[in-house]
Amino acid sequence: MRRTKLKEIFTQKENFSEKEVYVYGWVRTNRSQAQFGFLNVNDGTCFETVQVVYDDKLINFEEISKFRVGMSVFIKGIVKLTPEMKQPLEIHATEVKMLGDCPENYPIQPKRHTREFLRDVAHLRARTNLFSAVFRIRSVAAQAVHTYFQDRGYVYVHTPLITCADCEGSDQMFKITTFNMEKLPLDEKGKVDFSKDLFGKQAYITGSGQLQGETFAMAFSDIYTFGPTFRTENSNTKTHANEFWMIEPEMAFCDLNGLMDIEEEMLKFVVKYVMDKCPSEIDFCDSFVEKGTKQKLQSLVDSKFVRISHHDVIDILKKANVKWEFEPSYDEDIAKEHERYITEYFNGPVFITDWPKDIKAYYMKLNDDGKTVAAVDLVVPQAGELMGGSQREEDLEKLFKRMEEMHVNASEIDWYLDTRRYGGCVHSGFGMGFERLIMYLTGVDNIRDVIPYPRTPKNCEY
Amino acid sequence: MRRTKLKEIFTQKENFSEKEVYVYGWVRTNRSQAQFGFLNVNDGTCFETVQVVYDDKLINFEEISKFRVGMSVFIKGIVKLTPEMKQPLEIHATEVKMLGDCPENYPIQPKRHTREFLRDVAHLRARTNLFSAVFRIRSVAAQAVHTYFQDRGYVYVHTPLITCADCEGSDQMFKITTFNMEKLPLDEKGKVDFSKDLFGKQAYITGSGQLQGETFAMAFSDIYTFGPTFRTENSNTKTHANEFWMIEPEMAFCDLNGLMDIEEEMLKFVVKYVMDKCPSEIDFCDSFVEKGTKQKLQSLVDSKFVRISHHDVIDILKKANVKWEFEPSYDEDIAKEHERYITEYFNGPVFITDWPKDIKAYYMKLNDDGKTVAAVDLVVPQAGELMGGSQREEDLEKLFKRMEEMHVNASEIDWYLDTRRYGGCVHSGFGMGFERLIMYLTGVDNIRDVIPYPRTPKNCEY
Repeated sequence: MRRTKLKEIFTQKENFSEKEVYVYGWVRTNRSQAQFGFLNVNDGTCFETVQVVYDDKLINFEEISKFRVGMSVFIKGIVKLTPEMKQPLEIHATEVKMLGDCPENYPIQPKRHTREFLRDVAHLRARTNLFSAVFRIRSVAAQAVHTYFQDRGYVYVHTPLITCADCEGSDQMFKITTFNMEKLPLDEKGKVDFSKDLFGKQAYITGSGQLQGETFAMAFSDIYTFGPTFRTENSNTKTHANEFWMIEPEMAFCDLNGLMDIEEEMLKFVVKYVMDKCPSEIDFCDSFVEKGTKQKLQSLVDSKFVRISHHDVIDILKKANVKWEFEPSYDEDIAKEHERYITEYFNGPVFITDWPKDIKAYYMKLNDDGKTVAAVDLVVPQAGELMGGSQREEDLEKLFKRMEEMHVNASEIDWYLDTRRYGGCVHSGFGMGFERLIMYLTGVDNIRDVIPYPRTPKNCEY
Repeated sequence: MRRTKLKEIFTQKENFSEKEVYVYGWVRTNRSQAQFGFLNVNDGTCFETVQVVYDDKLINFEEISKFRVGMSVFIKGIVKLTPEMKQPLEIHATEVKMLGDCPENYPIQPKRHTREFLRDVAHLRARTNLFSAVFRIRSVAAQAVHTYFQDRGYVYVHTPLITCADCEGSDQMFKITTFNMEKLPLDEKGKVDFSKDLFGKQAYITGSGQLQGETFAMAFSDIYTFGPTFRTENSNTKTHANEFWMIEPEMAFCDLNGLMDIEEEMLKFVVKYVMDKCPSEIDFCDSFVEKGTKQKLQSLVDSKFVRISHHDVIDILKKANVKWEFEPSYDEDIAKEHERYITEYFNGPVFITDWPKDIKAYYMKLNDDGKTVAAVDLVVPQAGELMGGSQREEDLEKLFKRMEEMHVNASEIDWYLDTRRYGGCVHSGFGMGFERLIMYLTGVDNIRDVIPYPRTPKNCEY
């Protein structure tokens, strides 16, 4: 089957000038007049649509004039460059054929649909400009992440999704079972007999691959994960979903400063890669999603990220002449309003380091002050927190103590502690929520609109 | 922190000759004599280990002599090229420091461990040569897959893992819940009240992203998925796991022949990419895992894949002078022994097309004969089936009929049927089990040894 993809035509315009092409795609609009007409066709291989000119010399001119939005079509024709026009080229059709019909009541019409409406037809929304841009950016950004790490020799580790280690608090994890839930087998005490389940015990789907990732960093030095993660949070906000993708790199022989170097370099690489590969999509977002997106991204690439401790951030916040909703405190997390102030204060991305230990995880390295841990959050203008990471506590005794303080059951993850028993070393890692990144890249403000089929409370369609 | 990764040193030997380097890694062996000794050190950035020569001019010579296997160490020293030796270079140490201790009873010793033993220390096995090779190949193969599709403009789609559409037969899917399974809420009829669960109904984790993938192919033409999938199969074989990764590309305006072109090109690309990027790892597999692996891979890259119908394969099998365990039949699947015979018969990879409809899925395109479907399995020498795909039934009426015949509930996936209602077109897709590919690339014969933390019945450790 001979086929010319629109991406080829648009990226090699001059080569295709006056050449015959064979386009397969879908009708976006059809404007017909008495003796000629224009079909706007998109084939999904690029953001651009092509204008197809047809006229009454075609034997099925009448039929073409009535082609409806959404039909799949075949077009044979000659490429004509139109440098004087808004679009750089058009196709003068010598043959136009309908391949698949589309009824009048097709939900995706050439007009502005609300994003709420489009969520209800999530299986069709990728056919709109907005979601064509968002989901191509998502795809290219994923490749940017892989390319950054692979080019630097990191090993991509597929950490398990199913887990029985409930170290993170099983409340936040989905339970999985093969049982018929209407007839759970019970043991003699009347408890559910999980020994009869597929894994012989209660299993979950996980919220992080970090612990398993650390074990692989002790073998490969530099590793990363990139896969789906799950949280049971019953929270209906613009930034929460119950299924999302996460990237979790982990580096041996790397301290907190080394970690920040990597985070900064990686983020700039990914942003630049997407800007280079998706200029039309970014332009669209800049015009129709969030004005200034392009400038925002370019500023990030050009900036030098600030590094400042949590303590010093609180100092700045306390001195600020602002009436806070949440009073800044040396012992507490910082609120969204604080993040906003700090990124505006420094006019760029800020690494906030050395957080109070009580509000951070047990595996983070205790600083010499005994009060703070070597953790770092990256906050960026407009979007807030993009990544969180830390140097890990490599000292087994200190780690035990922290686990005890935070009521983490050490015996359940004894294998993890082996990373500190057998050739342990300074190491660090971070996590980046992939959807957060896509929202940042596109300016889209609702996580439901950057996931193909979002899962949120009471919402598990498709 | 100044650090020289072994990968840099080994790939740019000449540049590093006589230069000072700062190596961080783990001791693989230590052979000490009266006045000097040799540490073998690996830092995980490449398969190779480096020989570090130390002598009694170092102030802590005595201490170094006693360094144990598994310790993490820092080495400062000068790179000496040794073209006359087995290893191309060594490091003459000017400073050697222990970073992390490792006790005598460290399970990974410099001797051959059985793979069964190593499965019981899965969190440490990546530190052995075998798993260093396997998991680096796994990582590089993943990038090869991404690169193949992304370079050709495919959109990477993160199809949902959590689903409520039980179209594939919910028996084979894990159920997920946020309920406390000891106290399931019941409705007035005494049934489990799933309306109170997070998604408001019974939810599952999925075994395929194909249906959602098809909806995106109708927008982007060419898409692929690459993510974890789950099966509840209670099967303890060398080729089954309950969690594995799968690649599912889907192409609009692509028929069965186009599909085979893509499968063949993709597989050759991935194999060649891994051979190019992991020569030491492939050499190791060739020597210590499966003799002839390298030749096997090269043959595949050089071959032209045969295309033959299921009917004609059965003809060949029936004519063969072989006493079959399973008699070949025009109506049935072909057995492992048949696959083996056919790949030997053609001495290379074989696409088997046009299968009896009754043994294939409802969404596969019915051929004009009314008996077979436009499905294709790829079988390769030694490994058997590597991919399975089909042209999809784009005709809604025929699809309905097949769904009815095969007792698939159409109303549950009405959204999927919209791909046939709104601008439907010829389209095709395939699935490739990623572990199967890694087993093929490495010669490893047990799926438990190509997954970082395998999940199989009664086995969900780490």
